[in-house]
Amino acid sequence: LLGSSRVWYICYVSKLATIDVIQDGGVATPRGYFSGAAYAGLKKPGPDVLDLAVLYSEKPAAAAAVFTRSRIKAAPVILDMAVLRAGGKIRALAVNSGCANACTGPAGMASARATASALAKNLGIDPKEALVASTGVIGVQLPMDKIAAGLAKVALSRDSSHEFTRAIMTTDTRPKEIALEVKLGESRFILGGTAKGAGMIHPDMATMLCFITCDAAVEARFLQACLKRAVADSFNMITVDGDTSTNDTVLVLANGAARSPAIDAGSDLGGAFQDALNRVCLFLAKSVARDGEGATRMIEVQVKGARNLRDARVAARTIAGSPLVKTAVHGCDPNWGRIVAAAGRSGAEMEESKTDCFFGDMCLLRAGIPQEVDKNGASALLNLDTVRLGLDLHLGRGKATAWGCDLSEEYVVINSEYTT
Amino acid sequence: LLGSSRVWYICYVSKLATIDVIQDGGVATPRGYFSGAAYAGLKKPGPDVLDLAVLYSEKPAAAAAVFTRSRIKAAPVILDMAVLRAGGKIRALAVNSGCANACTGPAGMASARATASALAKNLGIDPKEALVASTGVIGVQLPMDKIAAGLAKVALSRDSSHEFTRAIMTTDTRPKEIALEVKLGESRFILGGTAKGAGMIHPDMATMLCFITCDAAVEARFLQACLKRAVADSFNMITVDGDTSTNDTVLVLANGAARSPAIDAGSDLGGAFQDALNRVCLFLAKSVARDGEGATRMIEVQVKGARNLRDARVAARTIAGSPLVKTAVHGCDPNWGRIVAAAGRSGAEMEESKTDCFFGDMCLLRAGIPQEVDKNGASALLNLDTVRLGLDLHLGRGKATAWGCDLSEEYVVINSEYTT
Repeated sequence: LLGSSRVWYICYVSKLATIDVIQDGGVATPRGYFSGAAYAGLKKPGPDVLDLAVLYSEKPAAAAAVFTRSRIKAAPVILDMAVLRAGGKIRALAVNSGCANACTGPAGMASARATASALAKNLGIDPKEALVASTGVIGVQLPMDKIAAGLAKVALSRDSSHEFTRAIMTTDTRPKEIALEVKLGESRFILGGTAKGAGMIHPDMATMLCFITCDAAVEARFLQACLKRAVADSFNMITVDGDTSTNDTVLVLANGAARSPAIDAGSDLGGAFQDALNRVCLFLAKSVARDGEGATRMIEVQVKGARNLRDARVAARTIAGSPLVKTAVHGCDPNWGRIVAAAGRSGAEMEESKTDCFFGDMCLLRAGIPQEVDKNGASALLNLDTVRLGLDLHLGRGKATAWGCDLSEEYVVINSEYTT
Repeated sequence: LLGSSRVWYICYVSKLATIDVIQDGGVATPRGYFSGAAYAGLKKPGPDVLDLAVLYSEKPAAAAAVFTRSRIKAAPVILDMAVLRAGGKIRALAVNSGCANACTGPAGMASARATASALAKNLGIDPKEALVASTGVIGVQLPMDKIAAGLAKVALSRDSSHEFTRAIMTTDTRPKEIALEVKLGESRFILGGTAKGAGMIHPDMATMLCFITCDAAVEARFLQACLKRAVADSFNMITVDGDTSTNDTVLVLANGAARSPAIDAGSDLGGAFQDALNRVCLFLAKSVARDGEGATRMIEVQVKGARNLRDARVAARTIAGSPLVKTAVHGCDPNWGRIVAAAGRSGAEMEESKTDCFFGDMCLLRAGIPQEVDKNGASALLNLDTVRLGLDLHLGRGKATAWGCDLSEEYVVINSEYTT
């Protein structure tokens, strides 16, 4: 299900930790978390439509987050950044879909604050313990009467992870959620996570939200460092050319409800926690890439032999984001030159005479020389559910993997008709 | 026809120069140039198909060029860079379509050299006076027997500019060519130009070739400086995120066949020459943007009030290249948030509370506050032949214009079926 984690950190060797998937798990699976969802009337009505979700932690949780690097940040992002900068613990989160609350000026900021206040009041907590997130159309104000009425309707429970996930979806065709149990010696803790987004390739639909919960007690600064590392090889590797939306958010909470020692940079459990967090992020990031708008296939681009890690990442991301690579894959056109050309313009160091190019294990270019290949066989490798494209630059030890999806006519159809 | 040149250089004030369009002019319109074309069998056969073009200057011409910045450069680019670096004058150019001669290793370099040699032999000139260019599929070797036979068939004349242009086209739907006459006092000289390319937005189809001729005598270093300036506000402003193909080339020749004093950095004619060159580049660049694969409309993005020129350029280019802006325009969806979001992620300095956003003259966002607008009216502004999108950042005096096109289902269809 998960594939193997590709990321190993020398500083955190996880000693014999066992990491298992919990069937049907999600964001409220770790101990001490509750979730719920309601229909507030932000999305078009329909059977089973949900558009407002709440997450609650009985115990105040250490929190870490990464946000969009766009100069234009949505109001909920600005609010959450301020709340987290203050350094306190977090107990609750409200998320709405259908409206991004971005480019909404002072009124939008007031709405974000009012949402946090209403949430806090309903739960009897301090507004400084509440976060908010939004996703949907840019430039439209949040209808606060609907938000307030919706929040009042949300019933929290231990088994509503799926409802939470459904409520934050926009153009997603599939829910994206996971839970993992980590066992090391007597210690047991669980990570849960959910994400929405039809790809970072769609940067201005307030694209990507991801919420991860953990019932271990994780020290806040260590939690932030772990998240940053996990995101670098997962969510940031489905980014196209640095595209980030106005609302992109990856949040992790750790509430310490599990029977497990506290985790910090020096503890034995640190490696296992990092590994499990990497897996959660990687699974959710790949799920987002696979569910790209109009996508019929996932593209996995592996670059190795790059001069360094930065070069490997930029080359892999550029290939995965190239419209011409994406359309070639869509049409099963074995036009490998597009892969090499995308890497060539990526900024990564490259020498044509050293470069190998692969579809799966089939080598189409070796040391800069085009190889004789069976065109039908090559084409068939582009028709797999996961299309594997590879590049070996033979310049160093840098390697990275990026994920994207094919580009279909359906993408154009979806995005030509978004607000109208 | 041309629109006004947007580019004025304080250092080159053209004193009362008159610049007129020459009807039906092209690359061989300036004095002393001859062109011709043939069908060599590189493209699929058909009525009137041409795929090999030759340009010849009676007098050796000063030459300047800008090439792709991709790490992966096609063999003809590598050869031409070496020839031009040697600093000699140029007398002839051979261009083929149907094969990019990129990613073709040492055999490809040998083919580029053999093409230049065959061209030089046919014309009785030195191979060091000959340049070559190619456009088409990457990773396929040039069939040298066909090239040699084709070159032998080319008949040169003074009135074959259109044939030259047709022979270098690939997915272009329209020829792109122009000639201008510059008059200043007793001086008269002509610039001619042609380009092929369905947009820099299609970076790995060995996208963009442009050849410009001039019958003035222009000093080589000044020529290169003028070209660099002209390209910065034209061809480089139809570039998406720095995308450059393996074969991109803009070449200008100046053979001194006109009755006109020599032009260098200090001469009175310098300003008029720069202005005329700007217009040729701008016209051809906009023609390329308008003819983007699958495009139904041209998008012109004007950014002003940026902190500086660099910020204005990067913001304008990012907006023009955003798939979501392009699809919104295609669907006449007045989703202006996508414009602001694209600028926000572009790297340009920006403050939401100062930002204005426009469709034509209609203001949709003023100082960060969404404006009440007539949605149908806004939608209609996206249905014009040239769609004008504007952003005023109110941070400084940087301004720039970029050109792109809408993104249609047809783009996906074209690019899913390129080599197969």
